Amino acid sequence: MKGAQAILETLHQGGVDTLFANPGTSEMALVRALDDAGTVRPVLALFEGVVTGAADGYARMAGRPAGTLLHLGPGLANGCANLHNARRARTPIINVVGEHARDHVALDAPLTTDIEAVARPFSAWVRTIGEPADAGPDTAVAIVAARTRCGPATLIVPADVAWTEGASPAVTPAVPVPVRPAKTLVELAASLIRRHGKRCMLLLAGGALGEAGVSAAARVASATGARLASETFNSRVARGAGRAFIPKIPYFGEPAEAFLADVDVLLLVESRSPVNFFGYPGRRGTPVNPGTQIVTIARAGEDGTHVLQALGELLGAGTTAASGTASHDLARPAGPIDALALAVTLARQLPEGAVLCDEAITASMALPEVLAGAAPHEHLDLMGGAIGGALPLSTGAAIGAPGRRVVAVSGDGSSLYTIQALWTQARENLDVTTLICANRSYAILAYEHLQIEGRLPGPNAMPVLSLDRPPMKFAEIARGFGVEAVTVDSAEALDDALVSAMQRRGPMLIEALMAPMSLPPKVPRTT
Amino acid sequence: MKGAQAILETLHQGGVDTLFANPGTSEMALVRALDDAGTVRPVLALFEGVVTGAADGYARMAGRPAGTLLHLGPGLANGCANLHNARRARTPIINVVGEHARDHVALDAPLTTDIEAVARPFSAWVRTIGEPADAGPDTAVAIVAARTRCGPATLIVPADVAWTEGASPAVTPAVPVPVRPAKTLVELAASLIRRHGKRCMLLLAGGALGEAGVSAAARVASATGARLASETFNSRVARGAGRAFIPKIPYFGEPAEAFLADVDVLLLVESRSPVNFFGYPGRRGTPVNPGTQIVTIARAGEDGTHVLQALGELLGAGTTAASGTASHDLARPAGPIDALALAVTLARQLPEGAVLCDEAITASMALPEVLAGAAPHEHLDLMGGAIGGALPLSTGAAIGAPGRRVVAVSGDGSSLYTIQALWTQARENLDVTTLICANRSYAILAYEHLQIEGRLPGPNAMPVLSLDRPPMKFAEIARGFGVEAVTVDSAEALDDALVSAMQRRGPMLIEALMAPMSLPPKVPRTT
Repeated sequence: MKGAQAILETLHQGGVDTLFANPGTSEMALVRALDDAGTVRPVLALFEGVVTGAADGYARMAGRPAGTLLHLGPGLANGCANLHNARRARTPIINVVGEHARDHVALDAPLTTDIEAVARPFSAWVRTIGEPADAGPDTAVAIVAARTRCGPATLIVPADVAWTEGASPAVTPAVPVPVRPAKTLVELAASLIRRHGKRCMLLLAGGALGEAGVSAAARVASATGARLASETFNSRVARGAGRAFIPKIPYFGEPAEAFLADVDVLLLVESRSPVNFFGYPGRRGTPVNPGTQIVTIARAGEDGTHVLQALGELLGAGTTAASGTASHDLARPAGPIDALALAVTLARQLPEGAVLCDEAITASMALPEVLAGAAPHEHLDLMGGAIGGALPLSTGAAIGAPGRRVVAVSGDGSSLYTIQALWTQARENLDVTTLICANRSYAILAYEHLQIEGRLPGPNAMPVLSLDRPPMKFAEIARGFGVEAVTVDSAEALDDALVSAMQRRGPMLIEALMAPMSLPPKVPRTT
Repeated sequence: MKGAQAILETLHQGGVDTLFANPGTSEMALVRALDDAGTVRPVLALFEGVVTGAADGYARMAGRPAGTLLHLGPGLANGCANLHNARRARTPIINVVGEHARDHVALDAPLTTDIEAVARPFSAWVRTIGEPADAGPDTAVAIVAARTRCGPATLIVPADVAWTEGASPAVTPAVPVPVRPAKTLVELAASLIRRHGKRCMLLLAGGALGEAGVSAAARVASATGARLASETFNSRVARGAGRAFIPKIPYFGEPAEAFLADVDVLLLVESRSPVNFFGYPGRRGTPVNPGTQIVTIARAGEDGTHVLQALGELLGAGTTAASGTASHDLARPAGPIDALALAVTLARQLPEGAVLCDEAITASMALPEVLAGAAPHEHLDLMGGAIGGALPLSTGAAIGAPGRRVVAVSGDGSSLYTIQALWTQARENLDVTTLICANRSYAILAYEHLQIEGRLPGPNAMPVLSLDRPPMKFAEIARGFGVEAVTVDSAEALDDALVSAMQRRGPMLIEALMAPMSLPPKVPRTT
């Protein structure tokens, strides 16, 4: 068979059944192979940042790698910001990227770039297929690399490798289950928790934030007084009524330092020792108290859930679930839409099993705590800080978790990097609700300016931070992409719009005109 | 002064007066410096691909470098596709890219990437400023690098370098004028033209396609019978009635081979020896006849216009302008909008001095020949083949050439990579008309599939090549971004819409619903 056929058949046999795609001429043999085989589902997106962000969302929810199909160096470059987010989220993705035919590369045709160089800063693994016979085996290695290195693996396919005979599919080896850390580490952690009690903090990330990990951590905390926390941004957190609420380390340095001030021992469970998102004049780069003892008891990719369960046994924490957050019955909010009203309406209307993709930035600061009492759901953060994640993420999540209701909450500014995702939602008729928090500015930046420069932006700087001249009309943009939309400017109307959105099949966009933000914003303390 | 102030002051003194921007936290000191100085004009775009494409269009029309302001590795990555196009267009751009504070980089915060590695494949020059004292001098070197290496120069600015005192502006050295190739080369070219006449072709690119170069080339051709041609895609071509029409080498390999079949001697004037855009099974990579003698008489960046003028003198071609293309009086077309009707309506309505940014792909195939008789105008192509160029390019061109009417002609698919450009057009109230050629497919790819696979795409492949389910409503999208818009489905209505667009102040979008394309498309022969 041809190289392209071997690649697709190896992907299919290796469990990669969905290919988010924006192909060009150099990928036509792969498109032909899609046509012939019919085993891998292609999902077209209009921009490569949607392709890669959707692959991230798909893999986070489906629990298996997604594929992408991208066009040469510039096409790949367009997808790199969301590959950066996927790499930080440790999401397995297999990027299939076309390249010129091998004898065409040296001619330096207009689209020629060093594709490996473009891929490397955003990939856990990169390889260019040398011969058609390598197409199958290299694809199998790419799948293993994406799964074991937990990130994007980029497989570059010269056009003539794809269109030439002499290939055959390869079997993808089974990937080892996550390592269980040594028992001595668990014993060390148990002794530290016994000694330090509430001055000991278990910091969770990765798989430890799934339902079993959260439950085990809650039992430990309940039995010993140890505190629980998660990283500031997380790939996927099980949250909602009946589950323990795990507060996140605050985003800004000052509240993060306060949050961690009383911690003598920080136990890392699949997490990294906290660092501030950015450096600021006169502030150290990490919020961790310099006297804090930091112990890694499960590294990223290891089985942190097992560690938490073993810890519970050692500490006699029992096996019955700790009582989770009570389901709350929140009153319908009224008046202007601020961050709290946004959180309350979402908490009221999110159905059980929903998936929330959060990139609302300043508008999302109240979400985790208020949603702790909502129906049980999954919360997916933007990882890596590359803006433009939520809309693609929600698109892929809906394909990776059919039957679940997906909600993307995005800032107006952040939504516009990858607004084209709406069209893929319409085309695939996905049950995604996109909630745009329109404050008509890059609001976070005004606050960052204040922190760095000691004052708010002046009149010559505001033109690069404000989005109000002209205001975007998101409902029109959405309809242009084939998505029904409504604009609301009160909490009551937002509540109504969410009721309607949760009941319909297919996508809907809600533009919520936000109340003017106070500066500096109130940062909810999550202690 | 602070590093940020020295950077801006050096840019200002070095002739860089416009900064297309999409900043983030790491660029706040630079935003503050914009506020304080007020000498460099910031232009906000909602997506970095708009930032870099606008900088390309600005510099092509203004004849001096544009600046960009971008956010760390992922922000820069979002701008790389249009930096690729700028690099292929040899456009000078100075990218100012923020980086974490120097002591923050080692902490590997979420947004940390190897920014130099991201920049390198798309830049002619890359440097990270080491100390505040280097801020001014390094900025001056960046300006010189962009101008002498003719491409994007990327200057990476650690946040603490920007916010720390101890810097001062530097004077940017004058850039040497383009080299005039040796007289012996001109003499060689003249003797080859005398000997081979019409079997000799002058292939023009770069500055040689300006008004003076086109005029000089036309005199040579008229006096000697030598043929003229341009590269397939060009940074900026002076075209229209009264100017010589210089046909371009056809895009597809087969007609390009026919176009070049009778050429014994190919004289390169700022151009490269032609190569096909892509490789195809069984076709060689260059359309040039293997027996053709290829002589470079002016390299890219050298003064090809001078060469053409000197050649004319040697060959006794006179100094009066050769008679250019006659101004035509085209009848108003009727019926469905196909590539010819599109070209005719544009030729009828383009005002003198207009700037046409062309990325209509299959819909633009008749443009150059039909526009040869239109009012004199400038024609800017997508260089580099990275899709998503025309809308940003037209946005920047309008800022770089105030008073000129700018028209972007784009495919529907290609417009959607950087559709956010419309908002910047509305905000800056630019006289840009965006004409979307909506055939509701990636039409070029169906033909490429036919060439590579020997058949049109089948039912499982069409979902990744078609844009008709659901159809985009471009007029709604445009209004959502604050741009007035109209949808037309006949040549008469298109003609009317163009009349109206050319008379209004500020931007307008016209969605032209195209007639179904015949496959394979008719490729106009440009002999």
